[in-house]
Amino acid sequence: VQRNNKQDNAPILQALNNYLEKNYVSFHIPGHKNGQLVDQELLAMFQQQLFCFDLTELPGLDDLHQPEGPIEEAQKLGAQLFGAEETFFLVNGTSCGIEAGILSLCRDGEEIIVPRNVHQSVAYGLILSGAIPRYVPVEVCPKTGLALGPSLFKVEETLKLYPKAKGLVLVNPTYQGVAPALKDLVKLAHHADLPVLIDEAHGSHFCFSSSLPPSGLEAGGDLVVQSTHKLLGSLTQTSLLHVQGRRINRIRLKGYLKMVQTSSPSYLLMASLDGARRNMALKGKKLWEEILEEVREIRRQINALPGLDLLDEEDLKGTGFLLDPTKLVISPRGIGLSGEELAKILREKYRIQPEYADNNHVLLIVTPGNSREDLNKLVVSLVLIAKEYGEISDRKVKKIDFPNPPIGKQEVSPREAYNRQFVLLPLPETIGEIAAELVCPYPPGIPVVCPGEKITAEAVDYLRQAREVGAKIRGLDKEGRIAILS
Amino acid sequence: VQRNNKQDNAPILQALNNYLEKNYVSFHIPGHKNGQLVDQELLAMFQQQLFCFDLTELPGLDDLHQPEGPIEEAQKLGAQLFGAEETFFLVNGTSCGIEAGILSLCRDGEEIIVPRNVHQSVAYGLILSGAIPRYVPVEVCPKTGLALGPSLFKVEETLKLYPKAKGLVLVNPTYQGVAPALKDLVKLAHHADLPVLIDEAHGSHFCFSSSLPPSGLEAGGDLVVQSTHKLLGSLTQTSLLHVQGRRINRIRLKGYLKMVQTSSPSYLLMASLDGARRNMALKGKKLWEEILEEVREIRRQINALPGLDLLDEEDLKGTGFLLDPTKLVISPRGIGLSGEELAKILREKYRIQPEYADNNHVLLIVTPGNSREDLNKLVVSLVLIAKEYGEISDRKVKKIDFPNPPIGKQEVSPREAYNRQFVLLPLPETIGEIAAELVCPYPPGIPVVCPGEKITAEAVDYLRQAREVGAKIRGLDKEGRIAILS
Repeated sequence: VQRNNKQDNAPILQALNNYLEKNYVSFHIPGHKNGQLVDQELLAMFQQQLFCFDLTELPGLDDLHQPEGPIEEAQKLGAQLFGAEETFFLVNGTSCGIEAGILSLCRDGEEIIVPRNVHQSVAYGLILSGAIPRYVPVEVCPKTGLALGPSLFKVEETLKLYPKAKGLVLVNPTYQGVAPALKDLVKLAHHADLPVLIDEAHGSHFCFSSSLPPSGLEAGGDLVVQSTHKLLGSLTQTSLLHVQGRRINRIRLKGYLKMVQTSSPSYLLMASLDGARRNMALKGKKLWEEILEEVREIRRQINALPGLDLLDEEDLKGTGFLLDPTKLVISPRGIGLSGEELAKILREKYRIQPEYADNNHVLLIVTPGNSREDLNKLVVSLVLIAKEYGEISDRKVKKIDFPNPPIGKQEVSPREAYNRQFVLLPLPETIGEIAAELVCPYPPGIPVVCPGEKITAEAVDYLRQAREVGAKIRGLDKEGRIAILS
Repeated sequence: VQRNNKQDNAPILQALNNYLEKNYVSFHIPGHKNGQLVDQELLAMFQQQLFCFDLTELPGLDDLHQPEGPIEEAQKLGAQLFGAEETFFLVNGTSCGIEAGILSLCRDGEEIIVPRNVHQSVAYGLILSGAIPRYVPVEVCPKTGLALGPSLFKVEETLKLYPKAKGLVLVNPTYQGVAPALKDLVKLAHHADLPVLIDEAHGSHFCFSSSLPPSGLEAGGDLVVQSTHKLLGSLTQTSLLHVQGRRINRIRLKGYLKMVQTSSPSYLLMASLDGARRNMALKGKKLWEEILEEVREIRRQINALPGLDLLDEEDLKGTGFLLDPTKLVISPRGIGLSGEELAKILREKYRIQPEYADNNHVLLIVTPGNSREDLNKLVVSLVLIAKEYGEISDRKVKKIDFPNPPIGKQEVSPREAYNRQFVLLPLPETIGEIAAELVCPYPPGIPVVCPGEKITAEAVDYLRQAREVGAKIRGLDKEGRIAILS
């Protein structure tokens, strides 16, 4: 055991304290917004004796991996509230639910249909399961350059191309709040008796208002995974997995849930799920209707500001896609700012912390944890910023706007690609090689190259252009190289 | 959204409150013992504004999956304290570290050497990786019937039998505190240039006293996973993974750590690791030396009680195994009680909560979170119980004492066994079939049948006997059936 003065430090504690000193208004996840959207009994319990509640599988406290007491009961109440047949508490995030879902649907070499804009956890599920992805290209919003999702037509086409597929993955909604034609998509899949796994990380609130897009369970999804922490007030890292119908092998699913979650799950995390479920059951409808009313109002106000472009329901009219209005996607190019620049100004000058920013836009997330004061502060700040920077007709910030990226041929499964030796090669030299890793530019956040795919000239060209206009590219190292199988 | 009165309930909150009302003295994990062994700044922060610290990857707060700020710094301080080259914070328990370790060592079809008494997470690592286990039989303690671990001789033999193996897994110590001849075992493996993965879930405190068995890192382990929450005061579900040397492919390891952990890791969990590390760095040596002194004293007192048999260092003399004295393994058969009966009396009459009990023994875990008062209460209770039940020469509680269980032939990999269809068959009818699941009696806690193995007549006989004397058998359903490949 070495010791020196530095061991006196606790860098994470320090960073958290520094962060709190800034007193930011939260327009990001987690949805409880500094404890404003929390079950009150839970809050009191944790404030009084947090560590006393950090217990383990003791008599009377049940076992997450074999529930037959309070955890089983809490999960049943969850199923009842959300309309599932069976609900599982997750302490390793939505990520682990997606992985367990894919593992329960596909074995090595079996096919699964996934839209191209899925979350990293789907890619991980593919690697762990050994499944072969069959990608559906996704539509891109002409106004914002954002990935919308797969169209009904493209999904239908893909289902026909791969009749042996074992499942369909859908996202409801995207990070930026765009929901696909979920009911029709699920119907299509069920017509082929294909189970549908829905990544509802950003849509756990949909069942609490009829003016929000339909929820995954309502649309008939067989397996729906929700990030309760993102919008419904539980602690970060807690999620729910819902199941309904006969298409999911629940024995397999339960088996894999044990593998992707610790054998020592935190009772603090599980209690926070139980509390969030109760709070939402008792107040969810009222809270979400109220905040939706507020959101409509500030949307009107932001829309009235010259030079700030807010993604609106109208922008999606006729596309088949729906918008979750609680996610505010603002493009500030009309006032000569990039999304990153606007985020920086909001953060540093107005102490407003957005959820995400890239060249094109800023994303702000509203939940019932936000007060009217928070919303007013946001609008006032945007008014001042719009005034200060002024509307400019000659837009100096180039919008990154791309067509749909090409999809290469799947030469080997992602599992095999991940397990084989790789080398790093400069982008232009990779044409014809097999990719070892995912390469994805933000915006639009649609992967251009996925593990196991042959890299095309079009893909290299697409990435080169994205790089030139300043997109952040995941999977491209500082020297501009990507990983290919050696 | 359905609603009824039951949604007013929060069963997990209720169970936690009920549990706390009983005011048990904790001789179980987590090691902080109701917040007695916690970094004081962390405790104050969490008490004041827990939910405010439940943040996410915001500017200045770094990213667990790509650390270059406070998380990186905190991990480096962890590596410095424990003597690793690189340390990773885990928010999905030691389980996920073991899985990522096995995934980084083995690909589909590659061999790995594992002792027969490994934790479930090793079995999961085998399933996820597709590796083929080559089991080392483990020694059984003649006095207690407990699994001790693999002997030097048996490991050497197995290494010779499987020269193509990609790694060796070791446990340091077992749940009951038995540590193997770690330094010699690691040397053996390194002589064959084989990386060693050490499951140190129950040994994170070893580096804080020279009178404890050697730590995995000290013994030269390449990859060491510790349950910080079990003994060093962090929140449940938090662990550390340490790496040293050139035998581990760290790029692969980091890749798999992303897969087995959520993309939304909890800052509360990470902060508690940071705090526990600091607390242990500043006070660990003193705290563990002090509690070890107390433990030696109460061991003397318990040993003096007639009819209570405490597993002692002397019992292991000449076996090559060492004992962690902070784990108290008490057999009450000399006073006519089973382990389960003693645990019940301790719990219900004396408000002392043990960690574990089975037919043979009770396990109590002591950490610096226990006060002298806790320890006195335990001794006084045991004195009263020994007096009340009296020493009996005619032991009416049958000790479950078995030879080493047989090991069947590995017909298919655990991954394949797990992925194929299975049926449930009554135990006597399974001879010659291939097992789909693990079957393990407690005691001795050594699997008799593992996934993918051919079931032998000896195995069936062993399980039948274990069942007759009242062992709990995991993998055997209520009707006495086990899962085999169909």
